[in-house]
Formats: sequence, structure tokens, C-alpha cells
Amino acid sequence: MKKWGVVGFFLIVFVAGLSQIYFADEGMWPISEIHKLNLNAKGLEISPDEIFSPDDLSLIFAVVQVGATGSFVSPEGLIITNHHVAYRPVQAASTTDNDYIRHGFLAMNHSEEIPARGMTARITESFRDVSREVLSVVKEGMDRAERTKAIEKRMKEIVAETEKKNPGKRAEVSEMFSGKSYVLFLYTHLKDIRLVYVPPRSIGEFGGDVDNWMWPRHTGDFSFLRAYVAPDGSPADYSLENVPFRPKRFFQINAKGVNEGDFVFMLGYPGRTYRHQTSHFWAYDEDVRMPYVVDWYGWQITLMEKMGEKDRGIALKHLSRKKGLSNTMKNYQGKLKGMKRLDLVKKKKQEEQALQEYILAGKDRTVKYGDLLKKMGEMAEDMRKRAEYELLLSYLGRSAILTSLGCTVYEASIERKKPDLERESAYMDRNFSRTKEKLLLSQKNYYEPTDKAILKEMLMRAARLPGEFRIPAVDTIIKDNDPEKAINEFIIEAYSQTKLSEEDVLKKTFSQSTEELMNMKDPFIQLAADLYPTYMLQRERNKARKGLYDQLYAQLLDVKQAFLKTAFIPDANGTLRLTFGRIRGYTPMDAVFYKPITTLDGVIEKTSGEEPFDTPEKITALYKAKDFGRYAHPDLKSVPVCILYDMDTTGGNSGSPVLDARGQLVGVNFDRTWEATINDYAWSASYSRSIGVDIRYVLWVTQKYGGVSHLIKEMGIAE
Amino acid sequence: MKKWGVVGFFLIVFVAGLSQIYFADEGMWPISEIHKLNLNAKGLEISPDEIFSPDDLSLIFAVVQVGATGSFVSPEGLIITNHHVAYRPVQAASTTDNDYIRHGFLAMNHSEEIPARGMTARITESFRDVSREVLSVVKEGMDRAERTKAIEKRMKEIVAETEKKNPGKRAEVSEMFSGKSYVLFLYTHLKDIRLVYVPPRSIGEFGGDVDNWMWPRHTGDFSFLRAYVAPDGSPADYSLENVPFRPKRFFQINAKGVNEGDFVFMLGYPGRTYRHQTSHFWAYDEDVRMPYVVDWYGWQITLMEKMGEKDRGIALKHLSRKKGLSNTMKNYQGKLKGMKRLDLVKKKKQEEQALQEYILAGKDRTVKYGDLLKKMGEMAEDMRKRAEYELLLSYLGRSAILTSLGCTVYEASIERKKPDLERESAYMDRNFSRTKEKLLLSQKNYYEPTDKAILKEMLMRAARLPGEFRIPAVDTIIKDNDPEKAINEFIIEAYSQTKLSEEDVLKKTFSQSTEELMNMKDPFIQLAADLYPTYMLQRERNKARKGLYDQLYAQLLDVKQAFLKTAFIPDANGTLRLTFGRIRGYTPMDAVFYKPITTLDGVIEKTSGEEPFDTPEKITALYKAKDFGRYAHPDLKSVPVCILYDMDTTGGNSGSPVLDARGQLVGVNFDRTWEATINDYAWSASYSRSIGVDIRYVLWVTQKYGGVSHLIKEMGIAE
Repeated sequence: MKKWGVVGFFLIVFVAGLSQIYFADEGMWPISEIHKLNLNAKGLEISPDEIFSPDDLSLIFAVVQVGATGSFVSPEGLIITNHHVAYRPVQAASTTDNDYIRHGFLAMNHSEEIPARGMTARITESFRDVSREVLSVVKEGMDRAERTKAIEKRMKEIVAETEKKNPGKRAEVSEMFSGKSYVLFLYTHLKDIRLVYVPPRSIGEFGGDVDNWMWPRHTGDFSFLRAYVAPDGSPADYSLENVPFRPKRFFQINAKGVNEGDFVFMLGYPGRTYRHQTSHFWAYDEDVRMPYVVDWYGWQITLMEKMGEKDRGIALKHLSRKKGLSNTMKNYQGKLKGMKRLDLVKKKKQEEQALQEYILAGKDRTVKYGDLLKKMGEMAEDMRKRAEYELLLSYLGRSAILTSLGCTVYEASIERKKPDLERESAYMDRNFSRTKEKLLLSQKNYYEPTDKAILKEMLMRAARLPGEFRIPAVDTIIKDNDPEKAINEFIIEAYSQTKLSEEDVLKKTFSQSTEELMNMKDPFIQLAADLYPTYMLQRERNKARKGLYDQLYAQLLDVKQAFLKTAFIPDANGTLRLTFGRIRGYTPMDAVFYKPITTLDGVIEKTSGEEPFDTPEKITALYKAKDFGRYAHPDLKSVPVCILYDMDTTGGNSGSPVLDARGQLVGVNFDRTWEATINDYAWSASYSRSIGVDIRYVLWVTQKYGGVSHLIKEMGIAE
Repeated sequence: MKKWGVVGFFLIVFVAGLSQIYFADEGMWPISEIHKLNLNAKGLEISPDEIFSPDDLSLIFAVVQVGATGSFVSPEGLIITNHHVAYRPVQAASTTDNDYIRHGFLAMNHSEEIPARGMTARITESFRDVSREVLSVVKEGMDRAERTKAIEKRMKEIVAETEKKNPGKRAEVSEMFSGKSYVLFLYTHLKDIRLVYVPPRSIGEFGGDVDNWMWPRHTGDFSFLRAYVAPDGSPADYSLENVPFRPKRFFQINAKGVNEGDFVFMLGYPGRTYRHQTSHFWAYDEDVRMPYVVDWYGWQITLMEKMGEKDRGIALKHLSRKKGLSNTMKNYQGKLKGMKRLDLVKKKKQEEQALQEYILAGKDRTVKYGDLLKKMGEMAEDMRKRAEYELLLSYLGRSAILTSLGCTVYEASIERKKPDLERESAYMDRNFSRTKEKLLLSQKNYYEPTDKAILKEMLMRAARLPGEFRIPAVDTIIKDNDPEKAINEFIIEAYSQTKLSEEDVLKKTFSQSTEELMNMKDPFIQLAADLYPTYMLQRERNKARKGLYDQLYAQLLDVKQAFLKTAFIPDANGTLRLTFGRIRGYTPMDAVFYKPITTLDGVIEKTSGEEPFDTPEKITALYKAKDFGRYAHPDLKSVPVCILYDMDTTGGNSGSPVLDARGQLVGVNFDRTWEATINDYAWSASYSRSIGVDIRYVLWVTQKYGGVSHLIKEMGIAE
């Protein structure tokens, strides 16, 4: 395959020299930029070319995107990632009798490895800047929504052309600076991923929601998976005939691990940051969006806890959803606290004030950019006014499972009639099987009483919206009756009549036309049809909003660059990035210092015997016997469990390899500290710390607790 | 006055040399023993004679017992102690309109200083060993209760003789090792104590129950009081004529404070520890007593919170009781956690096992001590069997205020007929005015709905006791009716008829005979009379139990000393002690280090604007302006707020002076860390840390926030 990777296509300007960059430590660097970083001066002991050079078998080929991130750690396609990254497929494979979440999962050989449903793996093969090709479709006089649609369509075309030229590969155009720069990535896409070794919840999720986002941490948040391909080496769906994938590169393990102060770097797929957004959007998030989500997710969590109280089977159905909701809720709570404490919006406003003064100091600039910030502010103001309505709408269609199924299959029937490139992404041929798989997995978690309560709450909230924001579908339900009574009756009726909760029925709907669907007379199809026009109006508005935003944002970037003459790194967008730093503690509050390496002693200290602090007895016994194998830290005299570092990460970096100066694997990233949830908006050298599980704990648990010696050998480690 | 202090009368044996003592850091040393400690080698820069020598004006005369501990800090009788030590009198002086808890109290000159109701001050003048005089009354053939009574009577006689010879002074015989060694202390007793400067709750109680027992801490837990005496210098009750007391010694203030690692020592009146008790009593506390108290106090706290929710006036009535209950509850929770974590009972059992082996290895020892531990175990077993009953009984008579008033005045009428030396201590002439003052203060906090709910709960619990533990007074209430109905009716009736909630009525009862009281026909007098025989039986049982315990304990001490040949320090018993150590942080859990000095930065960090984290705006403004005066720490660049040290303290050490190597005041002790609540049972060099407010914060708040320059001057500090 031809390599098109072009090294360094961003407008990154290093004015103050690299030392400034190092001390700031900020940066999720696009892989194209890493040769500018002078990594050897920072502590890297291998050539940066070994990490990435376009024409070589560099380390980036050992990194794999599996929802979040994973790493190849053997020539046989063995992948290490987080326990929580593999959580959904593990849950999907679990039953009350065979509870792999509770007891863990272990395959003693390849034939015992079972499918990780819903999981795929992507490996970045190459990339190139396509900004000009994308933006060439924008014409003077287009309205805002047209502009967005034209760009979206062009991106899809580029993807289609690329995939056509590269059979079996996946392509994606990623927006790096919105409205300004676009990069085409080509991925190898593996579809047969299997579970290999998953520790029990009491290790992999030790500390649970209590410890989530917290340091000191003692979670063995790792799992082993394996990628399979067809016998000819090509990506294929699950089949018994498939054979383990042989990656171009895999990471060597450094079983000796790291120490405080050591240089480390990370490769991974960070999801989304907002550092370049203006104060108006930050303030909207702080005042409106995040408090709304915290409230709504909290409501659902309370409900799910109540529902699952007395029956493990029912609790299991809620587990991964509840985990996801809690995770986001606690993250947002951390962000809200941090934004307030650090006065982020105020500081951003001050920066914008300075920028505005710079703009107004030049005549041309005043003409070109004078009302840029004002317009951004107006956009955010419009979002605030419509927030109650828009946020409700976004959850009404998806919080209750049956509503979500109904809306998705209804929309699919309409979208799938369109030419492939004109469809919403989820319904394009290349994505539709994934969409269906997700629906089937979500249906597995359906529990009627919970679903009813969620839908009722959503409808009740909708019923309280003022005149201009009335939703016709909801008014159709209520008519002139008492809203609560009408909603109750609707729900009883709908849930007693629907067939969408049956797997066979759902599967059939995937290929049905809109007319066939309507003929089912299913209440949730009818609800979807009634809601559809409302959603279409909102989608149009969103596209127009994005059209305007992209224009303003591109201008903002131009003038900011002229003003600041400093390095700009694109916000995280799910593409491959590198970040580097050191193993380092921090001071989270007055008079407290957090050291950067926790140990097994802390696991035992926290162990109360009650979930989520219920360490397996075997771990306690191994600890008491000081059976640490070769994995004890020489100074701490105990097995290191988690490590802390000042690298710059966000969601999506979960499962990322933590690599030492020689590029060997020393940990698996899985979380940030509570204080570092604020990373998504702003980086803080004092507070931004991320958390990984120490490779010594991974190996110790795998070998001593799990007794999975064959994996230890497969990774090339002498026991 | 003649000095009788005899230096060193305990059987303290230093086998392993002093270094062992230093590293252990354990020790609330009786003042008589301090010359054995080689304090100069530890870091003390003045002669130990300056701290205490029997014939000199040593530093101990600057220490004062005010419930807990305080220090004289000026020649004019100015006392510094904790905010929480002065809490009750401050609350008693407060009204909804004049809320000194909320707003603080400030007297700009002597004439504005107001009485600290219920507070007295004692200064240790001298002491001598009276063990032989006390134990001479124990005769062969006495039964256990007789033995206790004989000792109690002898102690009272010694006190009476001593006070007769020293008019105006107070004497007390303190049991150092129970059944074995007794020391007579002579105290100067001051009765006119006044409030001088009390910071607002938002400083003095910053962090409230949330931060209580916690580090890092940011509480300005200090208050200034002043002792007054009659114009001729003799102790006197409050009178406008009184003049400030001139103490023999007062502490110099070191406004520069201390640094990490500095030597410090403390003088104070630690209340009660249980380190010498056997495993059986520790297990009883862990399994039975503390869980009972945690439950019952928690119940009352919840009730009081509910009652005070909507009315600050009602909340104020509950404040100090709720604070006291919370304090004990959280302390016990810490102890329970610590006992479990450190497996204390098990370790104590192992020590006893070793002791038992030593006993059985000698024939004489076997005869003399062979069943000693077994008998201790039987005692604890008896307490376990009767626990539900005995614990209930102890709270039934005092948790509801009216029950407590009724029982006390009824018992007083009986006791006060006896010769003074035969009365229970609270009713002796020398103590009775204090007892009355306490009743009046507690009556001020009476709130009928709360009191009713508490009494109802106690009676309901009593109603559920099994046959052998039935309480006749309770059966009288219930008769053959449904217990809840009968109790409800009794309560409605009793509270509508009683007059004991009226101050005038209560005052009158203090001098009434039993017959006069019964003629009042007050339901709470009647209840007291009905309960009285039950309490008398229990009291007799307690005295017998103590008689046995004292005998066994004295024997245990003998054989333990023969076995261990090591230092024994008597358990804390409210007498003057010295402890020493260093300003030192600690590791409370894996990967966390707590530094030993907090700063104003942390106050601001914690400030949320909501109680208990509602820092006054003036503090925030001073902080922002960096108006730290001379009080900033040179390295931390902020005003130190609290300090942490590894000295050995317990309740009663509240308000104790923290003194530097030169004997100058650098802080005021007010708390221990959560991990150190376990101190009462066992010392841990790793975890036992105590907390003081840094003198720099005291001075900064007093001068910059309070604007009380005259106090700064009075303490001899240049602004």
C-alpha cells in the first residue's frame, strides 16, 4: 500500500522555544507533528522515527482503536486495553449463571476465546491533509445549513473514493480545526475481536464509582482481547475458521515498570476537547448543559439503583448503562467544580478581551474580525434560550430504550432509501451493521419498568415546556387531558402493545420500508413517526448553527494566530495523538501531596469486603504471603498497582499504552484525576494528571491470581 | 503555701533506654516524671526545671483547666483556649438577636467582658502520692462494693482535710493506676471567667462536623477568656467589683511560630485513655458499647437536625448538644474503624497470651495470678449480657432534658440529707453549685418536641427489654396496655403537667426535701422516684464491679511489670500531663502524604460560601490583598492556619498550649486526626497525630480580622 503520510501540516508555530512547551506539558499532538517536539531532549531514548515515520513499520502500528484505545502486545494479535473498555462485550456475554463481570473471564487457549460483541478494532495506516479538497465545495452565497451539508457530503465522497481504492480498509475525514483543516485517515478495520482474559469486577473495577476519577487509585483496569482475521489475513466477521491477526508491530513489555520522575509517552485516540472554544460556549456548558446532564443522569441512576436492588439479574441489565451515566455525571461534576474553582470562563473572557483589543487596534482587522466574538456570543445566547427544549429533545429520543429503537429504525427506513453518500453517517452501508449491532445490544438491557419510568419522566418534562417549544408528538398524546393521566395511559398502552422489545421483531425492522414499519402499528414506531418532523427541524437548525460556527471559528483561528504567534494544537477529535510527560505526583489541596505510584498495600487498606471494595480472597492471601514474584517495586517493597503522570489525556485515551523512554509498555492508561476532568477545557500543570494501571500489577494479577501463564509467555516475559 | 510536689513516684522502668521512648513517641507523662525524660536531648532548649520544679514558679502555673485546657498569655489573667471549649458559655450568652456563635464576641475593654457561664478555671498548685493513705482502708473480708465505698470515702476525707488546711483551694485525689496508686492534687480554683474575644463560627468552627477529626484542617479553633478574682486576689463568684487575676506565670508568645520538624511539647489535662485495659474490655467497647452509642447519638442528631431545620432559634437550642453528640459519634466511628484496621483486640490478646505463658511458667505466679485474665474475661462477659439494659438505663436518665432534671433534683434531695463526705460527688457542698449551674444551662436548651421524641424512644426501647431486665418504672407506665399507646399518653400528660421546664421552679427544687418534691406532683419527679430504686441497684452493682476490677487490675499491673520490665505510664485521668514530639506530617493511606502545616490558601480553597465552609468576606478580602502582616510563613508565603504533630493527646487536651523548644506558645491544640482517635486504646507512631491552631493564625485573625489590637499588645507582641 502506498504511504501518503505527510509529516507536519498544521500551523504550529514555536515562538518561545520548546522549553515552554515542555513546562506547560499541554498537548495531544497529532502524529504528524511529533518530529517537531525534540522528544529526545525531553527524555525519549529511541528515535522519534521509531514512533512514527511514514515509510516504516513504526510503533503506531501497535496502537489500535477499540472504541477507546488498545495495544498489540504479541505477534498473535493479543490486545491489552482497559477492563472498562471491554465492559459492554463482557456484560453482553454474561448471564446470571455465567457472570463474567463478577467472576471474570479466562480462555485457556484460542478455542476458548469468545466474541467481544459490538467491538471492532482500527489501526491507523496513513493520513493526509485534505483541507483544500474539502473546503473547495464551499461557495459564496450558500446558506449556513447548505454549507455544512456540502462539507459533509464532500467528506463522505473522499471517504468513498479512498475506500474504493483500498478495499477492506476504512477511511475517515477528521475535522482538525473546524471549518479550516481536515485530515483523511486510512484504517485497517478488524471485525472479529474476542475476549481472552478479563479479571473479576473486584479487581478490574475495584473502587467502582466511589474511586472513579480519583487518586490514589487501586483499580486493575485491564483486559486482554485478541483480534482475528480470515485465514488469508483479510478483515472478516466472526467465524470459527478465522485465525489470530498478525500486527505489523506490537509493544515489548517492560516488566520492571517505571519510577517517579521517569519520562513516559502515550499513543492513543483522545475523543474530544474544547480548549479552542470561546468563553460563550464554555459558559453555556457550565451554566446550562452540564448541570442539565448531571441532573438527568442522576435521576436515571437513582432509578436504576432502585430497580436493581433486589435482583442481580435485573441489576446486571442496568450495569453498563449505569456505569456510563455515573462516569459522565461524576466527570461533569468534576468539571463544574474545576471551572468554578479556576474561574475558567472569566479567564477566557479576559483573553478574548485582549484579542478584541488587538482586533480593534487595526483598521483592516476591525473590518474583518470586529464582530466575530459578538457573533459567537449571539450563537451561544440562542442555544441558551432553546436549551431546555433542545436538551430534552436530545434525550427524549434515546434515554428510554424502546423510544431509541423506534426512532432509529424509523429513521433508518427513510435514510436508507437515499443514495449512500447522502445518508446520515449511521445509516451508510459501511456503518449500518454496526448501528444494528448497537441496537441489539441495547435491547438486551431492556427492562420494562425502568424504561417506562424514564419515558414517563421525559414526557412529563416535555409536557411542561412553554408554547413556542411544544412538541406536537407530545401534544398528540396529551390532547386536552390532564398531562400526567394522559401520559400514564399512553405508556401503559404502548408498552403492552409494542413488539419492539422482541429480538426477532427488531431484527426484521432493519430491512423494512417506512410503509411496512407503519403497518406494524407499533406504538413506538408511531411515536417515532410523530417525533420525526420535530427532529428534522432541529437537525436543520444544528447544521445551520454548525455552518455559522465553522465560518466564525476559522476566522477566529486566523486572528488568534496573528495575535498570539504561538503553538496551536487541534482539539482532540478521536484521531491518533501522542502526549508525553513524566511519572509525577501533585498537590490536590492545601497540605496534601499525592505520590505517583500506589501499591498492593493500598488495595488491602481499602478492602472492606463490600462492593466495590471486595478484593478476592486469593489476592489477600498472596499479599499476606508476600508472593510478589518479580513484580515488587524495589523501594516500595510491594507490587505497584497504579501510576500517575502529567501527560495530557481525555476520554478515548482509555486503554492507551503508557510507554517508557525506550518505547516499551509500562502501563495502561485508564482515567484522569478528579481535578483533571477540567482538561477538556483547559490544561493545568498543577492539577492535570492521568492514571494508568501499572504493568507490574497487570502481570502479577494475570500470572499469580489468574494463573494465565500462557499469556505471560506469549508477551515474551520470563516468569 | 507549702510545696509538697514529690518528683517521680511511679514505677517507671527504662530498660531499653530513652531512645526507645523517643521513637515510640507515646506518652502522656505525669508532671512528676518529666525529669526522667532527658528532654534536652530530645530538643528542649530550656531546663526541664523551667517547666516544672516543685519549689519554683515554673511553666505549669501558666496552664489552666477550663473543662479542657487553657493557657495564661498575659499578666492580666488573659486565657487562650479553643473556640469549642468556650462553646457552651458562648451559646448560653447568645440569643437569636445577639448570636455570638454566628457573629463572634468582642469586648473592647474589661468592662465589656461578659460572664462565661458554667466555666471555672483550675491551676495545679502541687501534688503528692497518697496511695498508702488511700489503700490503708481496704480490709480483708470486705465485699467488693464495700471496698469501693471505703476507698471513695477515704479519698473524700483526704480532700476535705486538705481543703480545710488550704482555704479557698480545691483538692482532688486522682486514681493513677486503679486499685494501686493515688495522687492528691491541690488546685487554685477560679470561678469568675469572662468572654473576651471569640471569633465567629465561620472561623472558629470552620469545616464544622465535616472537618472534625480530619486533616488537612483549617479551623481557627481559639477563643480568649479572662479570669477574675476578688479585689483581694482570692477566688470569687462573678461580681462587678472583681479584678483580673494575676497568674504566677504566663506563656510568652512566639509570633514566628514553628516549622516542619521542630521540637514541641504540650502541657494539659488529657481526660481518659484505656491503654492498660485488657482485651476483654476493648472487645466490649468495640462490639457493644461504641456501636450502641454511635447508633443512639446518630438517632438524636437526626432528630435535632429535623427539629432545627426551619428556625434558627430552635436550631440554636440544639447546637451545642448536637455538636457534642456528633463529636463523640465521629470519634467512636474513627475508633471502631481503627480497632478493626489495626486488629487491636487480637494484638492485645496475643500480648495477654504471652503474659499468661509467663504466669504459668512459675509456680508461685500460677497460684497468685493464674486465673487473673480469666476473671477479667468473666467481668466483661457479665457486662456484655447486661449491656442492652445497662446502656439503656444510663441514657434513659439523662438523654431527655426533663428526665435528667427530674432525676438529678430527686437524687439531690436524698443525697443532700447525708453527711457531706458520704454523698455522691456531684451533691457534695463543694460541687453542688456547679451541678445546679449545669442543670440551669441544660434547661436553657430545652425544646419540648425534641425532648418528647427522645423520651418516647427511650421508653419504647425500655418496653422491648426482656423479662429479667424489665424496669418497674416503665412497667408502671405501660401496665397492661399497648406499649406505644401507653407511652404516648404518658408523654402527652407528663409534658403538659410538668413545671420543671420553668427556671424559677427548677431553682426552687434545688433546696427542697424529697417530701416537698413529691408534693409538687410533677410527673418528672414521680418518674425519677419510680426509677430511683432501679438506679440504686445498678449503682451498687457498678461499685461491686469496680471493687473487683481494682483488685484484679492491681494484680495485673504487678505481674505485667515483672514480666515486661518496661515503662508504664498511667492512663490519662484528667490530671496535668506533659507530652512532646515534633511538627510532623504522615501517610494516612497508600500514596498520600499529609504535610504538617496548612495555610490560608486552604481556607480559601475550601470556602464554598455555605456553612460550614462560609468564610467571612473580610478574610477573603485580606487574603486577596495578601495582607498577612508579620504572620506569613517564609516558605509557604501564606498565613499558617493549623499545625500537625506527633504528640500524644486525647480529649481534655483541647486548648492545651503547644510550646516550642524555648517554652513559648506556638499553637493551641484542638483535635486529633481521624486515624488518631484510636490513641485512647493504642498509640501508633505512623498514625497518631494531633492538630493545633497555629499561633500565627490566632494573631492574624485577632489583629487583622477582629481588629483587636489591645489583645495583641497585652500579649506583648509588636504589631
